[in-house]
Amino acid sequence: MSLDDESAEVLRSLLVGGNVAALATLHDGRPAASMIPFAVTRRAGGIRLVTHVSRLAAHTGDMLAGPEVCLLITAPETAAMPQALPRVSIPAVAEFIPPRHPDYEASRAAYLAKYPQTADLFQLGDFSIVAFTPLSARLVGGFARAHSLRAEALADALGEDVA
Amino acid sequence: MSLDDESAEVLRSLLVGGNVAALATLHDGRPAASMIPFAVTRRAGGIRLVTHVSRLAAHTGDMLAGPEVCLLITAPETAAMPQALPRVSIPAVAEFIPPRHPDYEASRAAYLAKYPQTADLFQLGDFSIVAFTPLSARLVGGFARAHSLRAEALADALGEDVA
Repeated sequence: MSLDDESAEVLRSLLVGGNVAALATLHDGRPAASMIPFAVTRRAGGIRLVTHVSRLAAHTGDMLAGPEVCLLITAPETAAMPQALPRVSIPAVAEFIPPRHPDYEASRAAYLAKYPQTADLFQLGDFSIVAFTPLSARLVGGFARAHSLRAEALADALGEDVA
Repeated sequence: MSLDDESAEVLRSLLVGGNVAALATLHDGRPAASMIPFAVTRRAGGIRLVTHVSRLAAHTGDMLAGPEVCLLITAPETAAMPQALPRVSIPAVAEFIPPRHPDYEASRAAYLAKYPQTADLFQLGDFSIVAFTPLSARLVGGFARAHSLRAEALADALGEDVA
């Protein structure tokens, strides 16, 4: 389905304006939830979310063991009912992007443009870029305003907001 | 381990001051992440988190199929590095609490005390209270300040803040 303008604006605000996502992984077969900072990059055929993780973190081991994850981005809380908070849940496949990967420079640049204070972490050998390819999305724009989206709809909604 | 005062205060702030958690479930064997409002109740032997879910929601079906979940509560974003945002990840077991369950009234009261505007939803047959029993917790109080906690430490840190 294609999104109405208001829902597309909510989606843009979450993906472009948001800084942190909840990352659901499988940890020894059980669901685990952790927090990651993210940035968004455009890529042929759609968008990807990128993050920068330490090999010491449990979610890094989880993603090395199995690439299926789910990301949740939630709008900042307001005085409104929390049940109505805009959010988007994005089932995705995680891919580690080593320095010689063709997507490395664009992923690094997108992440550093958003988090320039993390530049030092790129000097450390135990940090890796991970890129998430969305499989679909479930957008909740407000109370009883939910949309199931194909992955392509994410790029469409972002328009020119992402390089 | 027992928490230093500053970390205990961070944990209290997340559990008592927080309104929404990311909920990681298994959906057809894959990780899924959704958002839930929560409240905290004290119970013999520890605390539980409670929420109120619609049977139409995917996470409700996930929890009916398998009770193992993980909750993530993240502090509101500030100007600081998002990597340093305080958060706690809580692997837990979900239990549906029907109206005749001995914990029903206390769970409902804790949830409604925090979200009085949801009272009408308790009249609907397709909403259920779900209580989460923590198995452990991983608290990140700031950059490089992480603590792995036993479930009992959650109740200890909350002290008298939860009835």
